[in-house]
Amino acid sequence: MALLVQKFGGTSVADPERMRSVAENVARCRRRGDEVVLVVSAMGKETDDLLRMAAEVSPHRPGREMDMLITAGERKAIALMAMALHAAGVESESYTGSQAGFITDPNHTNAKIVDVRADRIRAALDAGRVPVVAGAQGVSVDNDVTFLGRGGSDTTAVALAKALGADACELYTDVSGVFTTDPRVVPAARRMNSITFDEMLEMTAAGCPKPAMRSVEYAHRHRVPLHVRSAFTWEPGTWVVEESDDVEAALIRAVVADDSEAKVTVSGVPDRPGVAAGLFRRLADADINVDMIVQNVSEGGVTDISFTVPHTQLDDALAVCDAHGGEVGAQKVISDPRIAKVSVIGAGMKSNPGVAATMFEVLAANGINIEMISTSAIRISCVIADADADRAVQVLHDAYELDRTTF
Amino acid sequence: MALLVQKFGGTSVADPERMRSVAENVARCRRRGDEVVLVVSAMGKETDDLLRMAAEVSPHRPGREMDMLITAGERKAIALMAMALHAAGVESESYTGSQAGFITDPNHTNAKIVDVRADRIRAALDAGRVPVVAGAQGVSVDNDVTFLGRGGSDTTAVALAKALGADACELYTDVSGVFTTDPRVVPAARRMNSITFDEMLEMTAAGCPKPAMRSVEYAHRHRVPLHVRSAFTWEPGTWVVEESDDVEAALIRAVVADDSEAKVTVSGVPDRPGVAAGLFRRLADADINVDMIVQNVSEGGVTDISFTVPHTQLDDALAVCDAHGGEVGAQKVISDPRIAKVSVIGAGMKSNPGVAATMFEVLAANGINIEMISTSAIRISCVIADADADRAVQVLHDAYELDRTTF
Repeated sequence: MALLVQKFGGTSVADPERMRSVAENVARCRRRGDEVVLVVSAMGKETDDLLRMAAEVSPHRPGREMDMLITAGERKAIALMAMALHAAGVESESYTGSQAGFITDPNHTNAKIVDVRADRIRAALDAGRVPVVAGAQGVSVDNDVTFLGRGGSDTTAVALAKALGADACELYTDVSGVFTTDPRVVPAARRMNSITFDEMLEMTAAGCPKPAMRSVEYAHRHRVPLHVRSAFTWEPGTWVVEESDDVEAALIRAVVADDSEAKVTVSGVPDRPGVAAGLFRRLADADINVDMIVQNVSEGGVTDISFTVPHTQLDDALAVCDAHGGEVGAQKVISDPRIAKVSVIGAGMKSNPGVAATMFEVLAANGINIEMISTSAIRISCVIADADADRAVQVLHDAYELDRTTF
Repeated sequence: MALLVQKFGGTSVADPERMRSVAENVARCRRRGDEVVLVVSAMGKETDDLLRMAAEVSPHRPGREMDMLITAGERKAIALMAMALHAAGVESESYTGSQAGFITDPNHTNAKIVDVRADRIRAALDAGRVPVVAGAQGVSVDNDVTFLGRGGSDTTAVALAKALGADACELYTDVSGVFTTDPRVVPAARRMNSITFDEMLEMTAAGCPKPAMRSVEYAHRHRVPLHVRSAFTWEPGTWVVEESDDVEAALIRAVVADDSEAKVTVSGVPDRPGVAAGLFRRLADADINVDMIVQNVSEGGVTDISFTVPHTQLDDALAVCDAHGGEVGAQKVISDPRIAKVSVIGAGMKSNPGVAATMFEVLAANGINIEMISTSAIRISCVIADADADRAVQVLHDAYELDRTTF
């Protein structure tokens, strides 16, 4: 008998039919003898609808009120899900983040979990019931409602799995696991049976949409076994583990493309100590999420600094650069929104220096120009023109033979 | 400087524009120097939408889960309302029923208030903010979310006004006060400036849709001055008071029609002690809300018993009667859903025995047949055919000269 924490995203509980399907799966798990805790997100696009409604009501939207609003979405979902379970013959009770014992800091719209006091959830399990917990929410030490941010339901599930000592945390999504690349771009993409936490973290950082990075970090830190799987096919998906048995078998495990960022270049910056630091301090103070940074070799006492930011923060970033660039005497600030970041990821590359060379050669052989490069121990990322992204993913997937590798 | 608790129903906060209108009114009150606490219901028809969604998900809907679901509606409304207040330059914070200190019994879907610990609301007022409180919700002593039932927002407002020692509880609705009768039926209907609690209770019991009866009882018991008024015109409405100065002026104050009930007749019942009591005990055990009861004079050892129940409970009532009628040897059970109850109400009728006679004469003179009669000290109700209801209201309103009386 295993204790499973199962998290279902918005797509998986989007309507009554989907909820009944989830309830039937829980009933199957119970018949097998497993104990189950559900964590659910708001239904379908409800969170987006609530955000839009708030924008219509007021240009002034305090975080405290946004959290009160957004958490209404999960509240509806857990109540309806509990009813669907009753209809499937499974005793169940719904719990808000507060009732489930999620204590957070008071940082509204993006709160961090401080403690999980899961006494009520444990009691419900002991009483033979399936607790249904609202994802991404908690209560602050000031007794205010808090929201953990978009993707926070994954974090709720992992934290609850840790607090309960669960045997696994299953993240059910609309894809059937973690793939070697996006199967919509490369039909030969393969689902991995397992992946290491380090690889998963690099993949989510590089643009793989699921699961949310915070939840992978939390699971990694607390050694919670993660299982990313489908709420539509119910077949086994991808396990995220400490060390994969077959890591040695492949240098590269996945190719990921991300077109959510834009490139900014501040050119003609005086090459003095502290100039770049000052710029990035200003960007950080403005809460701008800078990803890749490249500084060219200095020529004639001036240099160019390029970096990438999310498209949604490009205007803010340019404003900071224009202001600060003037102060330090930079010549100009230019931006390019039409870029993509393509990354190859694999724990096996640590001991193989040829991986990067292969990547550059493959892109060059296909006429794809590399604008920026960044690397970690298990990832190499190249910024290219966004028009080349799909083709780059395809040729790299082929070059590393990911369509023929068994993971 | 007055402390006002202002309650806004679903129609009054149905969309962003309505919310801004409410926020502007609060800003006006604040400029006059008043302290304001808002109580809001779920937006528009949201509660109905949530009920429909639950019915789609599951035939088995535990009260605990229904309350978790329904209370999501007010949660959205308070958060958006607080944002609208910020946009109008009014500092504001939203509070769930639990945060506002509403402790209830654990009777889900229709919980009763046990205590109101309004410390946070008082603190928010002291800090110069306008608290926005979710109507009709609380937290049980078991720490579960509870719903006070439909119309419960009125009760929330009155209980909060009592707990805070407010100067008045203003119930804002989509009508501009309490009228002598339904102005849609009788265009000459007049708005009353004031009405006594007893009269208001009889009116709501007789079918006047607003305010909810529980809130009037609560206000009466705790001597909270009520003001029923419009959230569309913002003009003064009707005060509900202990004793009206002008009560002596008029025998009859209002005519109310109610077509929400059906009539059931159990005929040929043996006229023995305990037979009627047994029937109504069975109906009460089945939670059927019996209103008027008439028992005919016994003839030949048998009698007929008639009573009215809400249309929504007619099938259940008939099932109870069929079962129990057989046991006691009743001859048959018949029902008539096409009835209406017309009531005349006025504190002044207590000392005037001619009021009932006038009512019967007026109905007879207009060819309207009376099927059942019931009276209280300040109300006379007649059951008639529902097709005659509008005409009965019109001729009674004329006969008691309500179109020419100043209240």
